Amino acid sequence: MIAELKNDLLLRALRKEKVERPPVWMMRQAGRYLPDYIKLRNKYDFFTRVQTPELATEITLQPVHQIGVDAAIIFSDILVIPQAMGLEVLMEEGKGPSLPKTIKTQQDIDVLNTANAGEHLKYVCDALSLTKKELNGCVPLIGFAGAPWTIFCYMIEGKGSKTWDKAKQFTYTQPQLTHQLLQKITAITIDYLKAQIIAGADCVQVFDSWAGNLSPDDFKTFAQPYLIQIAGALKDNAPVILFPKGSWYALKDLSESSASGVGIDWTVSPKTARELTKNNITLQGNLDPAKLLAPIPQIKKWVKEMIDEFGVQNYIANLGHGITPNVSVDNAKAFVDAVKEYKND
Amino acid sequence: MIAELKNDLLLRALRKEKVERPPVWMMRQAGRYLPDYIKLRNKYDFFTRVQTPELATEITLQPVHQIGVDAAIIFSDILVIPQAMGLEVLMEEGKGPSLPKTIKTQQDIDVLNTANAGEHLKYVCDALSLTKKELNGCVPLIGFAGAPWTIFCYMIEGKGSKTWDKAKQFTYTQPQLTHQLLQKITAITIDYLKAQIIAGADCVQVFDSWAGNLSPDDFKTFAQPYLIQIAGALKDNAPVILFPKGSWYALKDLSESSASGVGIDWTVSPKTARELTKNNITLQGNLDPAKLLAPIPQIKKWVKEMIDEFGVQNYIANLGHGITPNVSVDNAKAFVDAVKEYKND
Repeated sequence: MIAELKNDLLLRALRKEKVERPPVWMMRQAGRYLPDYIKLRNKYDFFTRVQTPELATEITLQPVHQIGVDAAIIFSDILVIPQAMGLEVLMEEGKGPSLPKTIKTQQDIDVLNTANAGEHLKYVCDALSLTKKELNGCVPLIGFAGAPWTIFCYMIEGKGSKTWDKAKQFTYTQPQLTHQLLQKITAITIDYLKAQIIAGADCVQVFDSWAGNLSPDDFKTFAQPYLIQIAGALKDNAPVILFPKGSWYALKDLSESSASGVGIDWTVSPKTARELTKNNITLQGNLDPAKLLAPIPQIKKWVKEMIDEFGVQNYIANLGHGITPNVSVDNAKAFVDAVKEYKND
Repeated sequence: MIAELKNDLLLRALRKEKVERPPVWMMRQAGRYLPDYIKLRNKYDFFTRVQTPELATEITLQPVHQIGVDAAIIFSDILVIPQAMGLEVLMEEGKGPSLPKTIKTQQDIDVLNTANAGEHLKYVCDALSLTKKELNGCVPLIGFAGAPWTIFCYMIEGKGSKTWDKAKQFTYTQPQLTHQLLQKITAITIDYLKAQIIAGADCVQVFDSWAGNLSPDDFKTFAQPYLIQIAGALKDNAPVILFPKGSWYALKDLSESSASGVGIDWTVSPKTARELTKNNITLQGNLDPAKLLAPIPQIKKWVKEMIDEFGVQNYIANLGHGITPNVSVDNAKAFVDAVKEYKND
């Protein structure tokens, strides 16, 4: 029996309903800046933490209890999708992910699995169900996945890159294979997100972390159609937030999609983002995470200015990217508190 | 006795004079994708190549002769400025630069040198004079420096960074020291660029490689004033091209500065860049360097589309960032040839 939500600010903001104040959460809020997380990290390796529902739940709940955010986001990783498709993913602490076998040929694409996402990633669904139960209606629970373009980048390059030029070279020389692979990733991602919603996610976010490395035309060809497809496929299941980091140029198009929210980073001003989206869609963001390294009174001032600029309605307060490991818990909490204390003068 | 320029397309484009076709050059055109450069790299370490005028000249001339670009850009490094200010800079092949001693206090800033740039960096000026002579009027010679914000980033962090959060933390917690340091960097950079012009540079480019990591407001506070100051100080000496990578949001303001050109990367479309700058200034860019990894006919198609969009006048064809080491000489040449062959249908 699922408890009714006591704090549904996030879902109301996504439905464009009136709120008393904006909801607030932080990308990567469950993780490396929290001392209790670091204790677990020292005991269990990355995929043990991700694949053990009790651990993933404990980590997911930490920022809800310790920082007071208005939503939980399940502790997991975007690279569980390549894993479910049949590729090995290694995660070396402090070094970032790597995929020993990358995609090179039609044959490599043909053998990729796209079926039974919920079964292959049952541990994520179990973690969501357990977290949902433990939350007991305290705040909504966010599920997530990587966007097809971003997952494609890792599947071609096999690791992080500054320029993603191997991925782009594949794209430019084999556009047909590129679209085949992107479509396969999209299909399993839709199933996966649907399974997350059934398991307990109240809404889902799609992270297109490397979108901003594409030109506007390339984004329109290789990223946007798949984001729009995902948003469309889920529109009757739960609200979707799209976060194509860096792709300010796509804001207008995405605001006309079936998504309920679009995340923006700090390189676009709230005013510009509102103009580009004509207030058609709920915006989420966008404080530079580095600003959490400033003194607390300064953080509070910036948060107030940010909300003044975005406006209280159709808005979710967040950072413009993930919180960095070197932020103190007090400073993270100051960010959240500042949103909760917001008063429009 | 300096020979008259036989090919002054670049300078005419910067003066907004009519040209038959756009001039073309490539950022990092003198370097790591050229086999003859790699031979020299295997023989001499980085700072030997930079500090030996004969070597720097040889490297600078290679792409003029081998690729047929319409301008030479002196082979050097932006971190010669921290060196001239008194900081040690190490360059480990393939690992990027590092500064063993970083700036932390008022005292650290007070002891930095800002005088006699041309004397401290005489080897750059000598390389420019020698290159100018060797070019014998074939094409113009571009000098360059790093922008104050970008140099500041390295002086605080001591090495490259994805987030530059140490630099930003310094900025946010000690804005007064930040402006002091930025002003010192600006002062020596202006002197340095003037010395480069006297030595033979026909125009200069200022690289703000990390500008795009700043929010529009922060760019306006910590980057833009110093770029504008540099452009203003040099306006009677030679044309200045500003290249704040990623900072599309500043295009309007920079188009109203004393600069003659603004460089843009591939994340802003030519159409948007023209709209934002109201055709007030010559634009330079902006093909994604990864596109040089595509087949040659595709490269030529993209170049044609790019010029169609920018227009032939008030335009310098270039990449949106430096050419990457994995591009073949043939593909680099195809980019340049495509500009030279351009015909407006």
